[in-house]
Amino acid sequence: MARGDSLSAFLQDARARVDRALDQYLPKPPACPALVGDAMRYSLHAGGKRLRPILVLAAAHAVSLKLDRGGPARAADNTDRGADALALPAACAVEFLHTYSLIHDDLPAMDNDTMRRGRPTLHVVYGDGIAILAGDALQAEAFALLAREPASDRPFIAARKLHALRVIAEAAGAVGMVGGQVLDLQAAGQAPGHALTLDGDALQSMHQRKTGALIRASAVSGGVMAGGDPDVVTAIERWAGHVGLAFQIVDDILDVEGDPTSLGKSVGKDAAGDKPTYPSLFGLDRARALAADAADRAHTVLLESGLTDGWLDPIADWVTTRKS
Amino acid sequence: MARGDSLSAFLQDARARVDRALDQYLPKPPACPALVGDAMRYSLHAGGKRLRPILVLAAAHAVSLKLDRGGPARAADNTDRGADALALPAACAVEFLHTYSLIHDDLPAMDNDTMRRGRPTLHVVYGDGIAILAGDALQAEAFALLAREPASDRPFIAARKLHALRVIAEAAGAVGMVGGQVLDLQAAGQAPGHALTLDGDALQSMHQRKTGALIRASAVSGGVMAGGDPDVVTAIERWAGHVGLAFQIVDDILDVEGDPTSLGKSVGKDAAGDKPTYPSLFGLDRARALAADAADRAHTVLLESGLTDGWLDPIADWVTTRKS
Repeated sequence: MARGDSLSAFLQDARARVDRALDQYLPKPPACPALVGDAMRYSLHAGGKRLRPILVLAAAHAVSLKLDRGGPARAADNTDRGADALALPAACAVEFLHTYSLIHDDLPAMDNDTMRRGRPTLHVVYGDGIAILAGDALQAEAFALLAREPASDRPFIAARKLHALRVIAEAAGAVGMVGGQVLDLQAAGQAPGHALTLDGDALQSMHQRKTGALIRASAVSGGVMAGGDPDVVTAIERWAGHVGLAFQIVDDILDVEGDPTSLGKSVGKDAAGDKPTYPSLFGLDRARALAADAADRAHTVLLESGLTDGWLDPIADWVTTRKS
Repeated sequence: MARGDSLSAFLQDARARVDRALDQYLPKPPACPALVGDAMRYSLHAGGKRLRPILVLAAAHAVSLKLDRGGPARAADNTDRGADALALPAACAVEFLHTYSLIHDDLPAMDNDTMRRGRPTLHVVYGDGIAILAGDALQAEAFALLAREPASDRPFIAARKLHALRVIAEAAGAVGMVGGQVLDLQAAGQAPGHALTLDGDALQSMHQRKTGALIRASAVSGGVMAGGDPDVVTAIERWAGHVGLAFQIVDDILDVEGDPTSLGKSVGKDAAGDKPTYPSLFGLDRARALAADAADRAHTVLLESGLTDGWLDPIADWVTTRKS
């Protein structure tokens, strides 16, 4: 209970820092046309969970705790900045990317969703053309931000930035998020002449690309920016793989039995669209067991790699037990 | 005449190197789903001019010639790689970005073009959803490539890569290319409730974002990857600004009086769509004079900055006198 309360405080504080930084990092008029700025902000500030930025910041924090135990010489950054300041740009960049992917997924040419988080989707408000472009701009701004911040001439910071940028860009592209969305469109029969039927393994592979890749890249980029050794970064990636799977299974379960008010979106949409889901392929009980198993594996990774201090463990619990 | 012939040889050779590298740098199945790979390749290999990659390579070459005159210690890279190898990833990245922008511009929600370079546009072949995603993937792959290549642990290479990446990402985003396309949609009355009327200055400002920004960033990234000093890079950016303006004016003129067969697209589309153009605002003669003036200014920049060796001067002539 105390642990849950302090996680709430961490999440609230992290979200507030991320929300301020998101606004600060976006271009504003007259540097950019007012309309594209307004459209980007409409979708960025629609009240999301900020899961991916939280994974970036929590991973950076966990690595810095581990490095601190190694003595002052191994601290995350031998300037005046801590792991949090080093990781905040990456936290915002992955939220830019996640937001662009939601904007494009909601388009009539894809999922055709008119409501998201209790508000009309961007294309309903501004039209399809502006929605496509606002998504495109958010993707570009994510990489501009990663290249620019944290501003530093130090070679070890430049190396970390390039590493994080590569991991995030690969996760966002054809191998990761976009590739997963292509498979999703094929499975939903929306790619004429290229329909696919997904079994359990193919469903998992689709989700590992569509949502798992950016979730893993978020945690990895936090670990990298904080200066984690390769073995620590690998452990964080494995942890995030299990957490991403649990997240997706719970998402599918909430679509069956969640409360539309607290979710801020319609439920039962997957079943209505004949989309394969964990409950539809395995049944609700087995799906719940798979989510609990993924959370157990995530916990084991942290135990084995000495990363149980910090927020990674409670975050995995939160992701698995959330109601919205 | 001899100069024209040798430019042709340079362009042919550069295009062949870029075409090979574009294929090499794109993810392939099973790393990515086959459909998104096929869709990206369909649009990448549709026979474009490769103007932007050529600007990257030509700028890198011009800078390396200038550095060579400064003595061996100032060569572009004190490893075994020349300026060309350092700049080739950036050349491919800007072509990925340009190709994605064409895919999205052609969509029914934007220009609704069904033919491009003599072939059906991507959304006609694969549907709107896959076309949006192939464009999204190409943008991500551009930045993954810039972060990954040229692979090097040397701090000065990392610094150049981050510099080029930042310049290209900012040019691709809300301040640059996407911002220009938003203004274009507004001018064409395709952003409901946000219509704009462009006068001559606003037209130029729109084009400086929509096509000029990535053209400038292409040349700048070549100069940066080759190790150009800040003053040389600034001169290259000014040169590319004039060349980009000449390119756009000639584009508008060719839409009025070009040959649809050699252009590989329909002509008269701007006038039919009531889009403002240089000929529609200034008349054909004045538009031709503006293009020639921009080419003159480009030449003057090269004279003043000692960059007349290499291909930049003939490329500016080619851009201004091209018939397709």
